[in-house]
Amino acid sequence: MVTPILHQAVTRFDDRLRPMVAHHFGWPSSDLPTATTSGKMVRATLTVLTGECFTSDAEAISRVTAAGAAVEMIHNFSLIHDDVMDGDKERRGRPAVWHEYGIPAAILTGDLLLAQAPLMLDGPWAADPRATRLLAEAVARLAAGQMADLSLEGRPEASPDEALAVAADKTGALLACACELGALLAGASEEATRRFSRFGLRLGLAFQIADDILGIWGDPRRTGKPVGSDLRSRKGSFPVTAALASDTPEAAELARFYADEGPVGEDEARRATDLVTRAGGWTRAVREIERFEMLARQELSSVPGLPVDRVAALLSLTNYLSNRNH
Amino acid sequence: MVTPILHQAVTRFDDRLRPMVAHHFGWPSSDLPTATTSGKMVRATLTVLTGECFTSDAEAISRVTAAGAAVEMIHNFSLIHDDVMDGDKERRGRPAVWHEYGIPAAILTGDLLLAQAPLMLDGPWAADPRATRLLAEAVARLAAGQMADLSLEGRPEASPDEALAVAADKTGALLACACELGALLAGASEEATRRFSRFGLRLGLAFQIADDILGIWGDPRRTGKPVGSDLRSRKGSFPVTAALASDTPEAAELARFYADEGPVGEDEARRATDLVTRAGGWTRAVREIERFEMLARQELSSVPGLPVDRVAALLSLTNYLSNRNH
Repeated sequence: MVTPILHQAVTRFDDRLRPMVAHHFGWPSSDLPTATTSGKMVRATLTVLTGECFTSDAEAISRVTAAGAAVEMIHNFSLIHDDVMDGDKERRGRPAVWHEYGIPAAILTGDLLLAQAPLMLDGPWAADPRATRLLAEAVARLAAGQMADLSLEGRPEASPDEALAVAADKTGALLACACELGALLAGASEEATRRFSRFGLRLGLAFQIADDILGIWGDPRRTGKPVGSDLRSRKGSFPVTAALASDTPEAAELARFYADEGPVGEDEARRATDLVTRAGGWTRAVREIERFEMLARQELSSVPGLPVDRVAALLSLTNYLSNRNH
Repeated sequence: MVTPILHQAVTRFDDRLRPMVAHHFGWPSSDLPTATTSGKMVRATLTVLTGECFTSDAEAISRVTAAGAAVEMIHNFSLIHDDVMDGDKERRGRPAVWHEYGIPAAILTGDLLLAQAPLMLDGPWAADPRATRLLAEAVARLAAGQMADLSLEGRPEASPDEALAVAADKTGALLACACELGALLAGASEEATRRFSRFGLRLGLAFQIADDILGIWGDPRRTGKPVGSDLRSRKGSFPVTAALASDTPEAAELARFYADEGPVGEDEARRATDLVTRAGGWTRAVREIERFEMLARQELSSVPGLPVDRVAALLSLTNYLSNRNH
């Protein structure tokens, strides 16, 4: 439902930046895009499924779907800029925009998507100002979270709670926004809207920790990233902060590794991965995912009268996001 | 009128990015800002003066002033990102955000301002969706124009018309938007709104060429930039394209200079400046400024019944922008 809306919006972009946007989404030709190239569309799916929990009115669903496209535009703006900041050369199996077109082009492409996103909330109807505000607030939290995330790099004294607070901003805010928009624009009650926002936030935390696990223990053949890739850049993700906070000899050794600055080879990355495991980083991360998954489910179950099939779809998405292996 | 609104909005920003925004605007402490540090506020001035041409209703003026603040936020987002792309280390006599806080922080600070700008259109009233759209369209043109501007560097075959088209996007679009928003939100007629949009566009072109002149012939003691600074980076600004398009021996020599790639010393910069002058680049640029100034004035004079003092203020601003020497 969302891909054609996004694709349609992108066809109206200026010639000078449309190629970069099309490259990012994997739409190299003017053909209609296939669903597989444009990313998982997790956020738009959340918006639409949430909306469908509260309405089946065609116009309301159109508003909800358009909001899902707005959220995806924000998500993709942030991916393009994040790849510049992190120096990640690949995205979805293709060269990152900056790697293909240069850093200035990637900054401008992200800017364009960010500026156009609120327009997606508009349609034959006028945009709901509350929706515009929610979207802008999510970007503000996302940017602040990304800033905090960058400053966690190589800071062994960061606590697990700090890492969670950063994940809540960097990842949780936009998932919360995705759900909140779906509920708001489908006419849900204030209470139900708040519940869905919290569902999204908690799901976002489970999702981010699952991502952190992949960044350390992910199978290179499935993730497309080197062994222990987050450790190589000395990221302060949740499993690492949990390991460092443990009162173990491995924590002390890991702290020394994190205090170092030179480049990290494969053997050293393996050793560091092993230290995080032995200091309980993996166990604690998995437990935290389960906790947030459960909290997310609780939010859903506390809203009475939701259609069973939509809730089942949301729960199966929750389960998928918390147990990814690539 | 606009600075307190901007300052108020910034005080609500997240701790992790507010220092960068405050640094950019020159508001290092939590004191109320002084007018001198935050830039010239040309765009907001245009919005407010335009609005005052059509209404004196207090609520309408509040909307107009808030829109002026939105335009300034967009302008400042673009300065922060442009400085990253151009590698310019200084802005308004202070270190550029990227130079003080690093490139990731500067990208995120710009993102934050860009995302927050449409919210400024909101108030006790709901944002006018046409205003939101105008602002987003201006950003799209600005980004495409900046992309084109970067690709003009070291392209001696670019024509003067191409350089003008780039200037219309990069600089004209936001000035046109500033004026159009003022007219629209003050309830001007469609015809008058269109005239003011064109006034802003033409003023923007005059302004940009005046800026191009400063970039080549500006007095280093007044501009704070080295002699011939735009020639050192082999920018394809209007005066250069005009010189290259002239059928003179100097044009051929200048083309060879532009085809080179190595770093440019002070003597070479002086020689290149001299070539642009002798090939008629300066004369043609000054003539073009005069032409756009006149066209801008024509737009204003074709709107009947404007208050004389506001028009006088707009014309004096026009004159100031076309004849800057720093």
